[in-house]
Amino acid sequence: MTHHDTHTSSDRTAAQPVVPRRSTRRGAGLKELQLAGSGFWGRMQHANATATFQHCLDWMERLGWLANFDRVAEDATDGPRPGWQFSDSEVYKLMEALAWEHGRTGDPAPGELFEALSARVAAAQDEDGYLNTCFGHVGQAKRYSDLEEGHELYCTGHLLQAAVARLRTHGTDSFVEVARRAADHVCREFGPDARNAICGHPEIELGLAEFGRALGEPRYVAQAQLFVERRGDGLLTPIPLLSSAYFQDDVPVREADAWRGHAVRALYLAAAAVDVAVDTGDDELLDAVRRQWARSVERRTYVTGGMGSRHQDEGFGEDWELPADRAYCETCAGVASNMVSWRLFLATGDPAYADLMERTFYNVLATSPAEDGRAFFYANPLQQRVPASDVSADTANPRAEGGGRAPWFEVSCCPTNVARSLASWNGYALSVSGDAVELLQYAAGEAEVDLGNGVLGFRVETGYPVDGAVVVTVTRAPRRPVRLRLRVPGWADGATVEDGGGARPVAPGWAEVHRTFRPGDRVALALPVAPRFTWPDPRIDAVRGSVAVERGPVVLCLESVDLPDGASVEDVRVAAGALPRSSGDGAVVDAVLVRTPAAGPGGFGATYRSAPPELLPVRRVRLPLVPYHRWAQRGPSTMRVFLPFPS
Amino acid sequence: MTHHDTHTSSDRTAAQPVVPRRSTRRGAGLKELQLAGSGFWGRMQHANATATFQHCLDWMERLGWLANFDRVAEDATDGPRPGWQFSDSEVYKLMEALAWEHGRTGDPAPGELFEALSARVAAAQDEDGYLNTCFGHVGQAKRYSDLEEGHELYCTGHLLQAAVARLRTHGTDSFVEVARRAADHVCREFGPDARNAICGHPEIELGLAEFGRALGEPRYVAQAQLFVERRGDGLLTPIPLLSSAYFQDDVPVREADAWRGHAVRALYLAAAAVDVAVDTGDDELLDAVRRQWARSVERRTYVTGGMGSRHQDEGFGEDWELPADRAYCETCAGVASNMVSWRLFLATGDPAYADLMERTFYNVLATSPAEDGRAFFYANPLQQRVPASDVSADTANPRAEGGGRAPWFEVSCCPTNVARSLASWNGYALSVSGDAVELLQYAAGEAEVDLGNGVLGFRVETGYPVDGAVVVTVTRAPRRPVRLRLRVPGWADGATVEDGGGARPVAPGWAEVHRTFRPGDRVALALPVAPRFTWPDPRIDAVRGSVAVERGPVVLCLESVDLPDGASVEDVRVAAGALPRSSGDGAVVDAVLVRTPAAGPGGFGATYRSAPPELLPVRRVRLPLVPYHRWAQRGPSTMRVFLPFPS
Repeated sequence: MTHHDTHTSSDRTAAQPVVPRRSTRRGAGLKELQLAGSGFWGRMQHANATATFQHCLDWMERLGWLANFDRVAEDATDGPRPGWQFSDSEVYKLMEALAWEHGRTGDPAPGELFEALSARVAAAQDEDGYLNTCFGHVGQAKRYSDLEEGHELYCTGHLLQAAVARLRTHGTDSFVEVARRAADHVCREFGPDARNAICGHPEIELGLAEFGRALGEPRYVAQAQLFVERRGDGLLTPIPLLSSAYFQDDVPVREADAWRGHAVRALYLAAAAVDVAVDTGDDELLDAVRRQWARSVERRTYVTGGMGSRHQDEGFGEDWELPADRAYCETCAGVASNMVSWRLFLATGDPAYADLMERTFYNVLATSPAEDGRAFFYANPLQQRVPASDVSADTANPRAEGGGRAPWFEVSCCPTNVARSLASWNGYALSVSGDAVELLQYAAGEAEVDLGNGVLGFRVETGYPVDGAVVVTVTRAPRRPVRLRLRVPGWADGATVEDGGGARPVAPGWAEVHRTFRPGDRVALALPVAPRFTWPDPRIDAVRGSVAVERGPVVLCLESVDLPDGASVEDVRVAAGALPRSSGDGAVVDAVLVRTPAAGPGGFGATYRSAPPELLPVRRVRLPLVPYHRWAQRGPSTMRVFLPFPS
Repeated sequence: MTHHDTHTSSDRTAAQPVVPRRSTRRGAGLKELQLAGSGFWGRMQHANATATFQHCLDWMERLGWLANFDRVAEDATDGPRPGWQFSDSEVYKLMEALAWEHGRTGDPAPGELFEALSARVAAAQDEDGYLNTCFGHVGQAKRYSDLEEGHELYCTGHLLQAAVARLRTHGTDSFVEVARRAADHVCREFGPDARNAICGHPEIELGLAEFGRALGEPRYVAQAQLFVERRGDGLLTPIPLLSSAYFQDDVPVREADAWRGHAVRALYLAAAAVDVAVDTGDDELLDAVRRQWARSVERRTYVTGGMGSRHQDEGFGEDWELPADRAYCETCAGVASNMVSWRLFLATGDPAYADLMERTFYNVLATSPAEDGRAFFYANPLQQRVPASDVSADTANPRAEGGGRAPWFEVSCCPTNVARSLASWNGYALSVSGDAVELLQYAAGEAEVDLGNGVLGFRVETGYPVDGAVVVTVTRAPRRPVRLRLRVPGWADGATVEDGGGARPVAPGWAEVHRTFRPGDRVALALPVAPRFTWPDPRIDAVRGSVAVERGPVVLCLESVDLPDGASVEDVRVAAGALPRSSGDGAVVDAVLVRTPAAGPGGFGATYRSAPPELLPVRRVRLPLVPYHRWAQRGPSTMRVFLPFPS
């Protein structure tokens, strides 16, 4: 028997990842927008569904991460346990992906995979609701004996997120009940009168808040609030060689100015803080996260939207510390950044949050998976100095770096995070606020959006992001004036919108049409996606004297495979006065290949010189630039996003 | 009873850290050169002797690192053991420092401290010669059960280096016998017919090679050779999340092109490889290290001489990966770099090696300790974005970074490495090759150098490095022509030497005077230490469009405490056409304070712009620059070595 979540008005709108308790704005239900299979995101969802899910499942079976659940169920935990202490979470993220996919498409296959996993997970739950394959059983460390590094609550958070997806796409079932018992266990163990503690890796907060929303269970939101508020009081013992900023236990959330420490942790925590702030009407907390977003986006974020400047600690750097070559920009941090921005958008309606999401979708999320959906980038640097050499299709990569996509990682958080994000992508593309439908992300497809009092249906035709023309044709409309808002990205200088009459210019923000639509009505947005130079702030030392080239929302890059033989991406200077021109889905730009003249006998005199080295021009070239999200698809290469211009 | 090393000709020349078995060149014995107490290095040696030794001793007593030896001696190892697994090595490095100090000065105090420590260490040795306080006793992991991370052989290597210092400054004693038994144990356990294994952290190789030289025991050198040759075959299991390059087990030493992985490990290994190559006549191996030095110095070394671009893995970066802000430049890597360069200099006589040593002495070794000898830098970045906030005089710093010198560290390798390097500094300042005395490092003092067949005595008068005049006055000379060679650093464009007649220009390399000297003869070298701009190779992205200012061998920097109120070191641009002028021991340079104009509403549009941001000049300033080795002595500050110039 299935009964549905009571907090949304229909099956179609229920299927969304984030449903704030108090909000005048909601995201699209996954079923409200169907993507065309031929579009950018349609193709990625296809690879996700037809390759990535099974790929992840196979790796987790092969490595024994799934069998860990069986061993707990069979009381056979005495031997060595494969996988890191957080490997359960990968299973839950895959389940979340499967649930969204099943809900979005109705395809039974992901639903069946979900149920098979659900049975194995459920069998591993202890009587009192505790569920973890690494702690608390024979031969294992005690429950909650290592809150700093144990990741038990982190795993539970992902379990709850998977349950949210299941509940909102299918209704309650035995898995949802497993999650409810796990959440109850957490509330008993960590409630206001129980142990005053937090998890080293935020995530439980997100899971509790949304599961509480989905079930209408305020205890869970209250427990999330408790975890958020406890943070910053030094409850965690710093891990050797790390500081408490690593897990955001240095400063209370509402007092922090910027994100710091481990990027994924910082962002999961910030997202949960928005959930708590919105549901409890805590504007001070909401404003704190908005302030942190503004500062961190301005000073600690790459042009790709990537976050996390440091391999050390997988962390944010200081303001303006944005090295291209050692950019960590973990794929999961991109996923997490979008989780924050989405919540802030729902809370505020500011399209700047959707702008960053678009940037992150095209340049982080879309960069990670290979076209075939069976290999992934973990880190997403903006410069690769040495071609990949050690990426095997058959070996889990022990490191996050390397210049090539790897099939799996020893710490394999990214593939399943990509999977759940792609499966639920539609939910972030549209929003509804009163009588307004807001088109946030552009993709060809069909929408039927529930306005509460009527439905606005429309078809989107576009070749975006390669083509900037977005044509919206109304297929169904209420017989009253409603608003159609089209997001005009911050970079779109010179956009126009045409609505029956002639084209009129629209500034970044919203292009709004407010009237009684009829089937066949067309609204055409033209976004200027011609390639353009983008200059970094002069305080970013790492890319001084350099420009990036962007094309619409897509950051481009230079790959060594596109250079003449023997030339290196380090030898390229953008030609004086050059302007990038469109070419396919990328660009071409006039450039000069240069040579650094030798100085002295080598060593220091050659590297640190007494006179400014004059670069010697070798030849002029027309340089092809490709979308950054496509790099490393043509064999091992070196790569640069930022290209120096002559000084 | 004391008998002396048979491999050097006298007490005075014996006291030196490196004595290759086959070499036409030797370093100075510590007693052959006495520094004036008022000079740069004389002052540092004074702080070292009067403060640092006791400071290190106190911390190691307080933290229980010394008591670890007592617990082994008393069979009381069952409880928890304080300190990391490599804490024994700090005791040995301090003992090495004490031995050199005692030998150099004859002061009994460091000798007595040495003997007190020696008794505690000796009591902890097992019957079969094994000596380690972390493994192999009741309640501890088994001996050699964790070669990757256990550091047992690493600790033994430092024990042997301390014994070398003792042997060469005092002669054999019970401590030397302890070391001999430890070395014999290693040879038994890891010899050609025993276990085919290596230590995760190279160091045993250095200890064995030099102890073998000092004792005339070829077995030890052969064991060092075996350890060097075994490396690169993947004998070590990679540590999770690290690659085998981390501990140089990826490529055999003789096949590698550049240093990579953990910098201190790479450099200790390279130094030992030179020892082995020289003593066995293995020119291929020697050439391999020379090639690695050349490539790594050209492409992986900071203008300070610092090595190690990454906090992650404490490692070398790729070619040209030299970020200023995240420069790791571990103090110990500077010490280790000089160990390599010194050995290569002895093997080849190429003064370029002594050039790099000078740079590293003034800008890494001299930067680490506070003036009072009681606080230290671990990492030595070339840019500090945020002032130090968390450095306490009473707490061991859990991290290597932070912008301030710390009294001690959880991993506290640097203070004792500074201590042993300063105590033995004189040994690197002079060399002797046949009838030539080579003055490599300039410091006021008195030398009496044994030429085998006679003594060349001279006084050095200089205010170097603040003043470039170095006057050598002969005090004693053989009645035959001998050579006095003065090193002319690579940066010294326009140096002159005066030798009785007028001044004549000398190019970088050697200024040689060859004649029969008489007491009172003067040779005056004039080195141009006026401040100068230094331009980095254009392939170093991180400092594109920027210059450093150097003054003689000293790298200068800008500190925020020298800026007008409200200005930031990030706002500074060197004025067009400016030239640095001398000021005290630093410089002044004309500069412009600029402001980056705001663009748009913030967020991405402000940071990544559609037009090149025009910096707004705010005011012209005369900017004081101070020696980098003195930074952070005037309270918390931000700092830059490289300053942008207007583009």
